[in-house]
Parts: sequence; structure tokens; C-alpha cells
Amino acid sequence: MASGKRILIVGGVAGGASCAARARRLSEEAEIIMFEKGPFVSFANCGLPFHIGDVIEKEEALMVASPQLFKERFNVDVRVNSEVVSIDRRNSEIAVKDLSSGETYTEKYDALVLSPGAAPVRLPIPGIDLPGVFTLRNIPDTRRIREWVSANGSNRALVVGGGFIGLEMTENLVKRGLTVTIVEAQSHVMPALDPEMVSPVHSELKRCGVSLRLGESVTGFQSMPDGSIRAGLASGGEEQADIVIVCVGVRPETKLAREAGLEIGELGGIRVDSRMRTSDPAIWAVGDAVEVRDFITGGWTLIPLAGPANRQGRVAADVILGRDREFRGVQGTAVCGVFDVTVASTGLSEKTLKRLGLWKQDYEKIYLHPGHHALYYPGARTISLKLIFSKKDGRIIGCQAAGKEGVEKRVDVISMAIQSNRTVFDLEEAELCYAPQYGSAKDPVNMAGMIAANVLRGDSSIAQWDEIASAAPFVLDVRDVKEFGKGHVEQAVNIPLDQLRTRMNEVPGDRDVWAYCLVGQRSYYAMRLLSQNGFNVKSISGGYRTFLAAKGGK
Amino acid sequence: MASGKRILIVGGVAGGASCAARARRLSEEAEIIMFEKGPFVSFANCGLPFHIGDVIEKEEALMVASPQLFKERFNVDVRVNSEVVSIDRRNSEIAVKDLSSGETYTEKYDALVLSPGAAPVRLPIPGIDLPGVFTLRNIPDTRRIREWVSANGSNRALVVGGGFIGLEMTENLVKRGLTVTIVEAQSHVMPALDPEMVSPVHSELKRCGVSLRLGESVTGFQSMPDGSIRAGLASGGEEQADIVIVCVGVRPETKLAREAGLEIGELGGIRVDSRMRTSDPAIWAVGDAVEVRDFITGGWTLIPLAGPANRQGRVAADVILGRDREFRGVQGTAVCGVFDVTVASTGLSEKTLKRLGLWKQDYEKIYLHPGHHALYYPGARTISLKLIFSKKDGRIIGCQAAGKEGVEKRVDVISMAIQSNRTVFDLEEAELCYAPQYGSAKDPVNMAGMIAANVLRGDSSIAQWDEIASAAPFVLDVRDVKEFGKGHVEQAVNIPLDQLRTRMNEVPGDRDVWAYCLVGQRSYYAMRLLSQNGFNVKSISGGYRTFLAAKGGK
Repeated sequence: MASGKRILIVGGVAGGASCAARARRLSEEAEIIMFEKGPFVSFANCGLPFHIGDVIEKEEALMVASPQLFKERFNVDVRVNSEVVSIDRRNSEIAVKDLSSGETYTEKYDALVLSPGAAPVRLPIPGIDLPGVFTLRNIPDTRRIREWVSANGSNRALVVGGGFIGLEMTENLVKRGLTVTIVEAQSHVMPALDPEMVSPVHSELKRCGVSLRLGESVTGFQSMPDGSIRAGLASGGEEQADIVIVCVGVRPETKLAREAGLEIGELGGIRVDSRMRTSDPAIWAVGDAVEVRDFITGGWTLIPLAGPANRQGRVAADVILGRDREFRGVQGTAVCGVFDVTVASTGLSEKTLKRLGLWKQDYEKIYLHPGHHALYYPGARTISLKLIFSKKDGRIIGCQAAGKEGVEKRVDVISMAIQSNRTVFDLEEAELCYAPQYGSAKDPVNMAGMIAANVLRGDSSIAQWDEIASAAPFVLDVRDVKEFGKGHVEQAVNIPLDQLRTRMNEVPGDRDVWAYCLVGQRSYYAMRLLSQNGFNVKSISGGYRTFLAAKGGK
Repeated sequence: MASGKRILIVGGVAGGASCAARARRLSEEAEIIMFEKGPFVSFANCGLPFHIGDVIEKEEALMVASPQLFKERFNVDVRVNSEVVSIDRRNSEIAVKDLSSGETYTEKYDALVLSPGAAPVRLPIPGIDLPGVFTLRNIPDTRRIREWVSANGSNRALVVGGGFIGLEMTENLVKRGLTVTIVEAQSHVMPALDPEMVSPVHSELKRCGVSLRLGESVTGFQSMPDGSIRAGLASGGEEQADIVIVCVGVRPETKLAREAGLEIGELGGIRVDSRMRTSDPAIWAVGDAVEVRDFITGGWTLIPLAGPANRQGRVAADVILGRDREFRGVQGTAVCGVFDVTVASTGLSEKTLKRLGLWKQDYEKIYLHPGHHALYYPGARTISLKLIFSKKDGRIIGCQAAGKEGVEKRVDVISMAIQSNRTVFDLEEAELCYAPQYGSAKDPVNMAGMIAANVLRGDSSIAQWDEIASAAPFVLDVRDVKEFGKGHVEQAVNIPLDQLRTRMNEVPGDRDVWAYCLVGQRSYYAMRLLSQNGFNVKSISGGYRTFLAAKGGK
């Protein structure tokens, strides 16, 4: 067990800090030194936007562990403001620049762990370096943004990029009293998700006074005489703001690894094996800087998330100290709160499936909109859920969900199912907590499984809104007359479900019939009824709600 | 697919109603008749206590589907107030008593489905039939209780039995303004759970003004001249109340099945196979009246829960209509809210393990008390979680959790893991939703898995509070001096973790050392540190919080 190894760790957040603490727990004799370029280690990266919004009031709350605690508790030598500038692999030595003194010194290692993280992408456009234009990565960035907002009495913010961090920044700037505009190059925010699943976020942003400029990009920034910043837009328009936050993604920090000749993957991350070892057997790498295997596709992927980073740090420590541990890969489970709306996902999106050319004709998708708890109990909120699965064997490929309550719970359960290589048939049979305040006897997870299983067993024939234009079917709306009156698909004919048995003669027998209702349940019943009476009928998955979401997601 | 089968269903709630609707979806040609002894079908059983508390204000909210809807939507002939009094298996015929007219008639079946449910146990004690002494099963019971409370201006309620329904009744009676006393024969409420996990419920009940009489039972009831009820207690004391609700469990309704000569299991439920078929191949049974297989032990069990009942109804319909479907068994996932506290569990409790003599020396248990979301984000609430797993292979046997937020989410995830035959190593690697409002980079589920995996890999040597008296170790409290000062285990010696490396000489090398802290994390670090320095040391699982909980659970 005991080992006098000298373990050097480059980077003191998430993966690096986890690795250091784990290594010490495994070996009292190891010598462990952790180098951090910045002034802080082990801070709560994911909390930075919330400190800007004063939701997390005190900066010290973000400090998970201080250098002193690392010393006293773990006997880890933490050196902040210390940039590792080069690796001499031949001599197992790194060069460290003390940023306070400017001096450079070397340290020998038995094992070296790289946890340099990922840096915010800086757009190559004019004015990106102007005062008032920020990116967000660490505590100093956070301080600068807070100070700018206070010092300049900023009222208008421009957030460039509508991904998770852009949205968290937006919410927090609104909470600070700013008016926010988001510019997003894609047709919808949260570009990692499928457009129809993001519709509730668009609505929520608008409800909260946020302006959206979608399918738009910034071409440059200019300082104006009044101290504000003018952003030129690709469409020819412009936006004025007192502060700009650029959140257009992150890029693995690989300079050190590259210069040391370590293998870099095609996606630009440090290449590691399942034991987090780089192409040099004495060097490990963890966290946002590495490419890891996608658990579902088996391919390489970049997933800058704290959970996997921490687990990778543990794996590296275990392997360095002689244990055989492997990192299993990632499935991309993530959640983002946008004011009162939560969006979560796990596994692959349909977008990603198409981009990678995976499953092609062999995947199916279903939509549902169940309540987050029993509908008969007050306060039930709708969860909109999309499940993607293999047509061949029912294996779950991905899930996305949005709503105000209970969203991430269902995604977590489905994430565990994906990790366990489970199918939609297993979701159907899941035995989950039920009391009316918490769920339903048929939980949304069960419902998703039942709907998908019905499709795979041939009990349910479904159609998708995105195929309706090319299929040109007879569209049957089986909702109540009142519901139909409030809005419906243009070409639809209304026969309420409960009249369908007696009005079946109104349905054409020589055409494809596509039935829909509000969410897909009544149209499923209608499909069962009509198909058994010889009609060529499908139920449109997700119903009118998904129809509206598909419009709103654009 | 089509089938002109005549399917008769006895019982119109949960399992019966699910079976009827599913059968119709599978076959338009089947003739389906559903008989219900009471006046309502398909009502929300689990919502009844909340209607008593006016949380669910309108009774109609509890009506999931009316006979009219069953007729129009599913072409199911629903006959309420119709008691099926006997089965003539030889002639495939049932006798039905119309409770409105008093007349009895017969109906032939091709397939018969029994879904009679379970009836509240009526204590065999004097006065159990007095006015003002109630049990709760259905809408008429609910009405009677509501009317009694209103008509008599009841102020004091006595709830006999502290199980899930007793606790839901308690909360709702308090919400109606009554003062409630619970009499529970066991030493703690929620007798299905382990005592130390129920401690937060005891505290919450006391906080909300509920009186607890534990380890106590009622010997009889008397009507008093002022209209109140006096309950005599086994200890010799008494309780006065204006209304009494007896919630001491339910018993399968098997009279009809017994009289028809169908096989009854040892636990008193109707015996069925995995296709929900009784000992008569033309008769199925589903729901609270049947014994099903425990997914974990493989043994028979009675689990009166709505989720399994619904799924069993679907399985029966599928099998009757020619499909090969099996019910997988139950794992006993359940949740109960008690004012602001949520308690949830899945799999087996330690109590049950001991009662059944399963796993014996081969199971291990761990306790943890993580925050429901990141501690650095405001509002984090503690979840107390107990995980029971196999020492041999890490298979998850059971989980119980209590707290104010995020409790049932973790139990649902672990429930899915159990269903998938997963181990603690899979919990360790679970990739769950993380943003600071929702969880932690190491989610409570991960933490549970990591702690358990550390034990199984030999990295963590743990001890339990319930063994401390017999082991008589040197007890080391590694919390801060301040924490120690506020309360500690009597015989403990305090050396704060961060001083341990320099004060190791104060720890005896010739004794068993058991270390504890608040929740078990620092004592784990201490255990790692000391064990690598040659001490014979264990970390007490769950720390001081579990120590207090074990006291409070009694």
C-alpha cells in the first residue's frame, strides 16, 4: 500500500484537487505537490455565475478547500500562482514559473497529472479585448465582472452565446438588475439540445424580459464615447450594452501537453486511455482538457463537466498508486436552470445522432408531457420529455426533458438506466417512488417506457411532426371541440375521441390518417381503435404540445 | 390480434381499471365488463388523506375516470354497486349482486380478473365499531370522516398506527386544525423502515405539535357522555379524542378467491404466477390482493402499492389477449411525506434482512448525510441516507433516505440501479445531473457508492454505532474543538483531524480505535491516516448524526 512516489499535479480545481486528496488517502508516504496558475485552488467553478448574481453572496462560499486545508488535512503542498511552463519527459521533470517572483524552477516527478482545464473560447473579432468585454472562468474573472457592473452602474448586458453558461450568466445578470440580450448563432439557445426541447426556455427568457437574437452573430465590438460597447452583428444590425459576456464554449488547455509531445486527439483534447494515462506512461491527464470515450457511441468526446472530472481524478490517483481502475466514459448528463425552468439531458440528442450518422433509420423518438406529480394533487407541472431509443432492441440512446419541477429527477433515473445498458422495457417496469406529492402511479419514466415499448411491440404506430409535410396525411384532431377551437393544426379535422366509435365513417379509409391530441395519449387510443377497424392510422407523438414546441424552438 | 373474448373484471380501481383500459386497447372485439362493489371506479386511492386535509379541495379531483368515460372512451361496461359474490369455475360464471336492487345475476367469462384490493385491518378490540372510529379505504370512508370532523367540530384526533397512511392522515388532520396523537405499537413510526432512519420523522412530528405514544397499543374504545371517545391503552393509560382513525395495515381481500378454491399463499394473498394467473388458468388476479415475488429475495411478498397494481393489470390484459408478458416482481419502492420531511426507501431494510435471515454476515451498511445540492449554493438540506449492500459482490440490497429536499430523487435512481442488478461500484460511477441548484459534482448517490466501494475494496474499515457497546474501543472524535464542545459521545477523546498528523502519539497503538466525526467523512480521512501508520482503526459510519438519529429513532 505505502508508496514514496512523488506525484506532481498541474491544476488545482475539480480533477486535480480530487486526484490530490484521493492520492493522499491511498498513500501517506507519497509526496504530493499541486501547482495552480491562478491564486485559488479547489473553488466551485460551477458557482461563479451565481456569485455574480449575488445568489451566492459571499465569495468565500465558493472556496471548497484552501491551500492551508490541503496542507493540514492532506499533507499536500499546494503552490498557487505557479505556472507549469514545460515538461521534460526524458528527465521526468517540470519547469514551474512562480508568477509572484517571476522565477522559474524545476521539480522531478514519478507521476505527473495534468488537470489544466479548458479555457473560454475568445472570438477572433475586433474589440474582443476591450474593457467591458469578459469571459468567465475563475474567481478573478468573477471579481472583474462584479466590479465592472458596480463601478459602471451597468444597465444593459449582452451575452454572446446561449449555452448553459450563457444562460446562467443571463439569469444572474437579470437578478443583478440588468437588462440582457442574448446573441446566439444557432437557431435556438442550448445548442447541444434538440430545438423542440428548448422551446420552454425561449418562453421563459421572454417572460423574464430577456431579448433573444437567434441565428445571429457578433462581428466586432467598439467602445462608445459614453463608455458603453457597441456590438456589430452579422445581419448588419447592432446591440448597445454596458457589459458584454462572451460564452461561446471552451477549448481544452493543451499547450503544455502539446509542447511536451503528448498525443492530442482529433477533437483537440489530450488523448488518454481508460486509466487516464496519456501517451507517456508516467503522465496522466484528467478533466476538461482530455478527450474521453462516449459511453454510448464508443467514440471520443469532449465533455467539460465537474462530475466526470472528479471521478477521473480519483481514477488517476488509484492507477498511480497501483490499483487497476478504469474510467467508464461519459454519457453527457447535464442540467441547467433558466429562471423557473429546468432543462436536463442525458445520452445523445437527435442532432448528435444525425451529425455522427449513428443509428440512422434505426432510432425512434417519442415525446410526452406528463405532470411532475399526480394531476389530482394541486400544483402539478408539466414535464416535456423526449426519449430516443434503438428500434432494434429498445436500448435507450438519449433523453431530454424540460419543465418547472421534477425534471432532473427523471433524467437522473434514465441516466442510471443508460449506464446500465437498459432498454425502454426496463423504464416501463421501473418501480419508482409514488405518493401524490412526488409522482404518479405511472411515473413519467414509466410512461416514457410504456409509450416506447408500445411502439416496439407494434401496438403503437407513431408519426412525427417533422414528417407531416412530406407525408401529407389526413390529420385527425381527437381533442374536445373546445380545445380544438382554441387552436389546432391548420389542415386538421376534429372528431373528439369519445365520439370516434360512432363517427368512424367520417374518417377516410383510403388515406393515411395521422391522429393527434394535446399530448399523445388520446390519439394513441384513437390509433388503437381505428387500426383495429382497418384504418391506416398513426398517432403523432407528443401531440399539439410538441407541435407548438417545435414552432417555439426555432 | 382481434379477439371476441369476454373479460370480466372484479374491482374497478388501480389494477382493475388499468387492466380494462389496456384490454380494450389491445382488442376492440373483446367484451369487457368491470364490476365494482362501491359506488366509484378508478378513483385516486392515494389521494384520500389529502382530501380529508382539504389539500385536495374537491372530491371530483379524485375521480380519475368515470363509468361514462369508460363506456365512451373504452367501450367498457362498468357496473358500480355490484358485488361479485361467487365464482362458478366449472361453468366459467360469476354471480353478481346488484347492491342497489338486491338482486343477483350471473355472467359468463372467458377470462376473469380479480382486483379486489386489500381492506384495512380492523383491530379485534371492544368499541372498534363505535361511531367516530374510522378506517380509510375509499371515497365513502373519506366522506364519513370529513362529515364527522365538520359535524362534531372535532378538535382532538387519535391515529392508531404510524405507518404511511397513519402519517398522511396525521398531517392532514393537523392541516384541518386538529390536535393529533399517534399510538404506534412499535418503538418507532414507519415500522417498515429501520429505526435510525425514522428519527427525522419523529422530530418533524414533534415540531408540528403531534404527540407520539410509541411502543403502545390500544385495548379498546368507549363512547363518553360528551361525545368524545376514550381509548384504553395497554400500558394502563388512556387517550381522549373526538375522532379515531385506525391505520394498522391492510389485508388482502381473498374471500371470493378462497371460496372459489383458488390457491392462497402463506402470507394470505392470492397466489399468482409471473403472468398474474391464479391456480385456475382462466382466472387472473392483480393488485393489493395478490402475493408477488420480491425482486431481490425471490420470495413471496405483499406490497399494496398503486404502481405495481397498475403494471400488473397491464400484464394480465396482455396475457389474456395472447401476449407473453411477465411481471418482474416488486422491490418495495415507497415514499411518504410528513409535513416538510420526506422519507423514501427501496429494496430491503436491515430489519427485513434480519427477520428473513438473509445475507446474515454477508451484508454491510453505510450511512451518509450529504446536502441535497451543492453546499456552496444557498438552501442545501441534509439527506440522511442508508445503503445496504452485499459484502460479496457489492450488489445493492436496499436504500432508505430522509430529509427535506431531493430525497426521493436519490431513492429513485438507486431503485433503477437495483432493478438493473447493479452494484455499489455502479453508484460510484453514476453520471447524474449537476448544477449547484440541483446536486453536487459528487451526488449523494455517487457518495453512497464511493463510501461503499471503499469498504469493499478494503480502503475503508468501518464500524457501526450498534456494535460499540460490545466492542468497547478507544473512541476518537476528530471534529473541531467547538463541535466537540457542543455535544459528543460520552467516552470520546477529541483530536481534530487537521491536528492528527502531529498528535498521533495521543492515540493508543494497542487498542481498537474507532473514529467518528459529524457525518463520517473526516473520520474516513483519519482512518486512512492512522491505518497507514499502523493503528488498528475504524471509521464509524454516518458519524455523530447517525449516533443522534439512532437515539431519536427509538
